[in-house]
Amino acid sequence: MKDTKALNIPTLSGNLCNQNLLQAAQQFQTPLFVYDFNQIAQKYEQLKLAFGGRKMLICYALKANSNLSVIKKLATLESGADCVSLGEIKRSIIAGIPAYKIIYSGVGKQDYEIQEALKIGILFINIESKEELLRIEKIAKTMNINARISIRVNPDINAQTHPYISTGLKENKFGVSIEEAKSLYLYAHNSKVLEPIGIHFHIGSQLTKLTPIEESAQKIASLAHSLLALKINLKFFDIGGGIGITYNDETAINPYDYAQAILETLRGLDMTIICEPGRFIVGNSGVFLTKVLLEKENQDKRFIIVDGAMNDLIRPSLYNAYHQIIPLKDTKAHQSLADVVGPICESGDYLGKNIALPKLERGDILAILSVGAYGFSMSSNYNTRTKCAEVAIEDGKLRLIRKRESFEDLIALEKDYL
Amino acid sequence: MKDTKALNIPTLSGNLCNQNLLQAAQQFQTPLFVYDFNQIAQKYEQLKLAFGGRKMLICYALKANSNLSVIKKLATLESGADCVSLGEIKRSIIAGIPAYKIIYSGVGKQDYEIQEALKIGILFINIESKEELLRIEKIAKTMNINARISIRVNPDINAQTHPYISTGLKENKFGVSIEEAKSLYLYAHNSKVLEPIGIHFHIGSQLTKLTPIEESAQKIASLAHSLLALKINLKFFDIGGGIGITYNDETAINPYDYAQAILETLRGLDMTIICEPGRFIVGNSGVFLTKVLLEKENQDKRFIIVDGAMNDLIRPSLYNAYHQIIPLKDTKAHQSLADVVGPICESGDYLGKNIALPKLERGDILAILSVGAYGFSMSSNYNTRTKCAEVAIEDGKLRLIRKRESFEDLIALEKDYL
Ligand SMILES: Cc1ncc(COP(=O)(O)O)c(C=O)c1O
Ligand SMILES: Cc1ncc(COP(=O)(O)O)c(C=O)c1O
Repeated sequence: MKDTKALNIPTLSGNLCNQNLLQAAQQFQTPLFVYDFNQIAQKYEQLKLAFGGRKMLICYALKANSNLSVIKKLATLESGADCVSLGEIKRSIIAGIPAYKIIYSGVGKQDYEIQEALKIGILFINIESKEELLRIEKIAKTMNINARISIRVNPDINAQTHPYISTGLKENKFGVSIEEAKSLYLYAHNSKVLEPIGIHFHIGSQLTKLTPIEESAQKIASLAHSLLALKINLKFFDIGGGIGITYNDETAINPYDYAQAILETLRGLDMTIICEPGRFIVGNSGVFLTKVLLEKENQDKRFIIVDGAMNDLIRPSLYNAYHQIIPLKDTKAHQSLADVVGPICESGDYLGKNIALPKLERGDILAILSVGAYGFSMSSNYNTRTKCAEVAIEDGKLRLIRKRESFEDLIALEKDYL
Repeated sequence: MKDTKALNIPTLSGNLCNQNLLQAAQQFQTPLFVYDFNQIAQKYEQLKLAFGGRKMLICYALKANSNLSVIKKLATLESGADCVSLGEIKRSIIAGIPAYKIIYSGVGKQDYEIQEALKIGILFINIESKEELLRIEKIAKTMNINARISIRVNPDINAQTHPYISTGLKENKFGVSIEEAKSLYLYAHNSKVLEPIGIHFHIGSQLTKLTPIEESAQKIASLAHSLLALKINLKFFDIGGGIGITYNDETAINPYDYAQAILETLRGLDMTIICEPGRFIVGNSGVFLTKVLLEKENQDKRFIIVDGAMNDLIRPSLYNAYHQIIPLKDTKAHQSLADVVGPICESGDYLGKNIALPKLERGDILAILSVGAYGFSMSSNYNTRTKCAEVAIEDGKLRLIRKRESFEDLIALEKDYL
């Protein structure tokens, strides 16, 4: 038996204890997402604290989990928002994040999204290409308004994570090269409506190595130095998101080390740090509860069939991601390996493979850990399955934050055309 | 230049011609799914015809595309339905498929789903395990009703397709072994409420080889023979779905050869054939329209950034699936290779890689072909992107069959808990 404490393997603790989760499953049914709001707050504060007295703004990356109540919780902690669509900007505003703390990133912004972002007056737009820079300039001119911008620089550094979420190599679609960035900053500096106030990089998600981040920060800091020397008045140093978490036995980056590394590279630069964490803030704070429907042995293979599926949580199938799976019952009994699979008609529909589990009974609840990020936000209606409910636990109290979708909701946009 | 005709590569033709698609993009905006209803009907009739005068029922597999209007179209052609959730059964009924043509498959049926299916009086339930058999018996007894069933037999045959959609190996979660099937049929035969009337197999999706299907059918037919000899009155021989289509240059199984192979194995068995095709019926009949936002070169790499993304069409990212991509403009111009990518913030967000495309302008429309199956039905709201509209083309006429989702729709189930 591995020593879970020593390896820092996620377990059920705090608000997310057996008793609370069983109550949640009973009260709100399964499958269900449950988030520990105290832990979310704690993660936010931990990162904030790591940067000490330094001027910095955490812009929570909504894409990880965009439930309005999650955003509102972070808004009360004074978080900003990193958004990648007008929809995410609207969510931020509704949840109480002030416009001046909202930044807008992404490689494919639409004109109406840019217009709206400028109208709302968000902090700045992260620009990903020359084409976009020119477009934003044009839109701003038409609107007779100034556009605050930052440029996403692609440092061409291997983030050493899953290829799907590695974004800082020149063969990725993101950002512009250092050379191109220079000329774009000069262009923007000379533009009547563009106001280059930030510089940005983001090399990938679920980063567990500090070195690539540090090297990227150094490259971008030296670029910032030379731009400042040209009197381009950069105020924000946006280090992106990507801080990894422990799903299994990965050693996560320590927030303090992370902050130190960044602060070190920023010596002599009087810029406000912006950080765009998503997974780090909410990842370990979410649990997916699913009910055992039956156990089945197909010849030598043991399957636990549950009521949750790949439509609810696609990470295992899409990224080959690992999530701890813990039964909410006495687990001291003899364990054997099983695949935990959903009711969807494909072999790709699994939540875990070769998981050690005791004999389970119909109705037993399994907790799938660390699903607070990229869980519900990527869920679909495949097989005409309705989207799960979402529940918050705060100070031991449960409350619904998203109602379970109904069949009627699913067909609402189709039925009138029959 | 390859000869696309000879290789049977999908192209734009019939209802799905440049002009119609451009009109659809203009009238209903992008990203957009467009389905050729005439072609859907043609595919249905083609398969029906291949089986000639033989007693058979096509039960369209809703999971491929469950839009109510698509189902209704098939209902008017007298199709039945293969469903994997109560939601899909409800869709079938609403769209006009009579209960006696509906079958219900899947490894993880819930009690309330089984109850409802029995109440509705569908044709039969495909059973995937002993546990499920006992459970259905129990439910039927409580309801004082007979349950017509069929058993999904796992022939342990390699379907030679993507592992995620290969389902006929013993290490998959699906069905029961031939030995177990025998004992379950005997059990059901002796049960007061269970009525075993069918036998079922389904070895995977996107099958391009006939041999594995033929071998499976032979194994299951010989099992059927021995069960009939025991006076178990099987009436339906359910051969599953899975007939592959041409996405690129795969040679698809000819429906006539398929039918002949099945009919050959069924010699001397007076059973009605049930076939559960999804992809074959709708796959090639769907096109995804997406608008070019910008072209971007990152050093040596060319990216076309479009308004459609992995949330709309996850097949490339999830299954590494290939889809033809054709610009709706003169393509005789010089072509060079490009990745077609969406606005979502991950490198896994692509619709095509290394696609030969001419220089494109902002606003040009690209048609992504053969997305009628497992396209919209797997779509999500990742990055707070709303689900696309869906449009039918029939006899050259366009009509909306699903309204584009709005931001308000997205937050409807959350906003009251703020
Ligand atoms: C630009 C940008 N910022 C922030 C994030 C958040 O990443 P994470 O959740 O890993 O912190 C992402 C994720 O893809 C991103 O693309
Ligand atoms: C039991 C069953 N029948 C039918 C189908 C439809 O398959 P296809 O769309 O490949 O025809 C599937 C697909 O997964 C299935 O699992």
